[in-house]
Amino acid sequence: MATTVGIEVEGAVATLWLNGAPQRNALSLSTWEAIPAAVAEAEAATGCRVIVIRGRGGHFGAGGDIKEFCAVFADEASTLVYFDRMEAAMRSIETARLPTVALIEGLCVGACVALALACEIRLGAAASSYAITPAKLGIAYPYGDIARVVSAIGASRTKTLMYSGVAIPAETALVYGLIDRVIAADSDTAAFVSAVAASSPWTIATTRRAIHNVGLDRSNKAAGYPETLVAAVTGTDFAEGMNAFIEKRTAVFSDVTIAPARTAGLETRR
Amino acid sequence: MATTVGIEVEGAVATLWLNGAPQRNALSLSTWEAIPAAVAEAEAATGCRVIVIRGRGGHFGAGGDIKEFCAVFADEASTLVYFDRMEAAMRSIETARLPTVALIEGLCVGACVALALACEIRLGAAASSYAITPAKLGIAYPYGDIARVVSAIGASRTKTLMYSGVAIPAETALVYGLIDRVIAADSDTAAFVSAVAASSPWTIATTRRAIHNVGLDRSNKAAGYPETLVAAVTGTDFAEGMNAFIEKRTAVFSDVTIAPARTAGLETRR
Amino acid sequence: MATTVGIEVEGAVATLWLNGAPQRNALSLSTWEAIPAAVAEAEAATGCRVIVIRGRGGHFGAGGDIKEFCAVFADEASTLVYFDRMEAAMRSIETARLPTVALIEGLCVGACVALALACEIRLGAAASSYAITPAKLGIAYPYGDIARVVSAIGASRTKTLMYSGVAIPAETALVYGLIDRVIAADSDTAAFVSAVAASSPWTIATTRRAIHNVGLDRSNKAAGYPETLVAAVTGTDFAEGMNAFIEKRTAVFSDVTIAPARTAGLETRR
Repeated sequence: MATTVGIEVEGAVATLWLNGAPQRNALSLSTWEAIPAAVAEAEAATGCRVIVIRGRGGHFGAGGDIKEFCAVFADEASTLVYFDRMEAAMRSIETARLPTVALIEGLCVGACVALALACEIRLGAAASSYAITPAKLGIAYPYGDIARVVSAIGASRTKTLMYSGVAIPAETALVYGLIDRVIAADSDTAAFVSAVAASSPWTIATTRRAIHNVGLDRSNKAAGYPETLVAAVTGTDFAEGMNAFIEKRTAVFSDVTIAPARTAGLETRR
Repeated sequence: MATTVGIEVEGAVATLWLNGAPQRNALSLSTWEAIPAAVAEAEAATGCRVIVIRGRGGHFGAGGDIKEFCAVFADEASTLVYFDRMEAAMRSIETARLPTVALIEGLCVGACVALALACEIRLGAAASSYAITPAKLGIAYPYGDIARVVSAIGASRTKTLMYSGVAIPAETALVYGLIDRVIAADSDTAAFVSAVAASSPWTIATTRRAIHNVGLDRSNKAAGYPETLVAAVTGTDFAEGMNAFIEKRTAVFSDVTIAPARTAGLETRR
Repeated sequence: MATTVGIEVEGAVATLWLNGAPQRNALSLSTWEAIPAAVAEAEAATGCRVIVIRGRGGHFGAGGDIKEFCAVFADEASTLVYFDRMEAAMRSIETARLPTVALIEGLCVGACVALALACEIRLGAAASSYAITPAKLGIAYPYGDIARVVSAIGASRTKTLMYSGVAIPAETALVYGLIDRVIAADSDTAAFVSAVAASSPWTIATTRRAIHNVGLDRSNKAAGYPETLVAAVTGTDFAEGMNAFIEKRTAVFSDVTIAPARTAGLETRR
């Protein structure tokens, strides 16, 4: 049976589960095809502030499901459809309005590394491990996925992983930049995700747009940022933030109704 | 009372102190406004070879002083003035002729992270911690500062810090690229700063210019570097360096009288 | 006596040895001049799949041989010849058809850091140490080498090393991105190098080309990648990889007869 995807919403957190524990969440064509709708479902959930992507059965995912490769690579047309669906799944995550967090336990291999990199932030359990293995099979890793890896960890570490296919543990993945935090306990994940969910959606959306625009000119003026700075200090989130600070309580921020545009430029992802 | 700045010169090292221990060196508009003149004072000090920026009372700094936010953000004009002054302070550090080193003890929060990133090198005490917290307040981080963070630690780690507001310890800051060395003891700081002060100012100035010019073409010719290589081996610093090497003593280098131009391109900062 | 270079081939691994243990493999003009031919010899060795560069006597290399500096820097013409030969040696490694791995034991100093960075992947022994020391001598580091360092470790860490000349241990070099793996035992090196040698040369060559092309547009189409994806799944390496997977044995891949072009763009190296 192919791995399916499902959304669970609990408070402000929508979890996109990869349901394929028997095959360690190896991803089939049908899985890739199901991801965009699942992301849309999470985004539509009332009060949802953050999307977490994770796998059932203690693994993030074993990569593309090799068992169906003979079928999906039967001819040129089906091969290109397969890789188009993969990329569409990645892009649906990358263009989500809400912050996206991959929670990686156990194995994270092949195409599942790219899936994790399509999320904005990656949390890795202490026992998680990472490998990119197309050179073991004589296949090509899609260009977009190579670009995702290079922009996260640089060319030399990409070659280190992809020329050898070796697996690295979470601590090395943190050093490489493949993950952003090593998670020692479930409570650490909950604390981090809650912190994101409690943050100002306006600040998150504005920060994301700025990060994606980072280029040569770092002046506020070039970035159209004078307006943003003024919008911030006259906005409802800042009023709430200041009141909470003065009253020594936690701020309660509203959802933003107008999501800032999010560009897909690679140059801004490390 | 607002945090003030002051310069102390000891030998070849000028220290720019943030004097605001009671408020953990939270920075006011008047602090930002005082920084460019302090940098200029350090640069003008006879025999000065390196500028160290640090805070009194065991903390680097708590960020912008929230207590004055209602006043400085009272209207659009005052808001823009505030952020212009912040950026001018950053730029005065970034365009200094001398090497700049941030020495970070205790808290380094919000705008003080950007202040540290405006320095060329960051040393963090083992017990220091780092957080970027505008999303807790619903405010915007200036575009230039987001660019400083992204160029140092990449997009994913910037999102990790800025979407959540969580604090990270020195060891994680080292892994992220937010600091460059973890300092175990005061003697480590002294040893590192002394090494910079004893280095050839000509080599430092030439290296800085090259780093800031790094781009697609890495040929000596494209960088106008054949002249530099020849200038090096016919220069006074190299003559002194060679003599010291032959005589097995420490080289004593002269100040450079013509400071090489230093461009502000972002692309060259990681 | 000047350090010489020599090739040893064992199975699929060609080792380019720096033979200069008495002077800790300090590199002379004659050493730089000998490197391109040695790389060509390794590439021509039958069945060779990977080139390892390392030094005799427990050190990678102490940098340029200071003892000959007075001679090679005697006049402008000889100075420029010297740096041209250095750069030609670096380029011969960077444009090699086979994967290149630096194995660094003991000292890796000055120009030898750039030599290691000319390799695609760097393995550092636990006891290895790294320093870039032109500022101790008042000399210039070639522009291409500064670009190599910056693209690997970013501007701040480049300044940390080059402004001070301090040495860092392997663990810090890993965090900086100067090396890619810390090697605890000889068997670790052998395992990693064997994994590279056993990987699909087609996948390695294709991956390298993609890494070097990484830019703004990450679509398969922009990269001419639809053809590559189809070529992969209709290729002989993939057929062998799939058969090995099904038969639960190790794949045995053929050499590629047409080496993919390899561009030299800096933007693709981290």
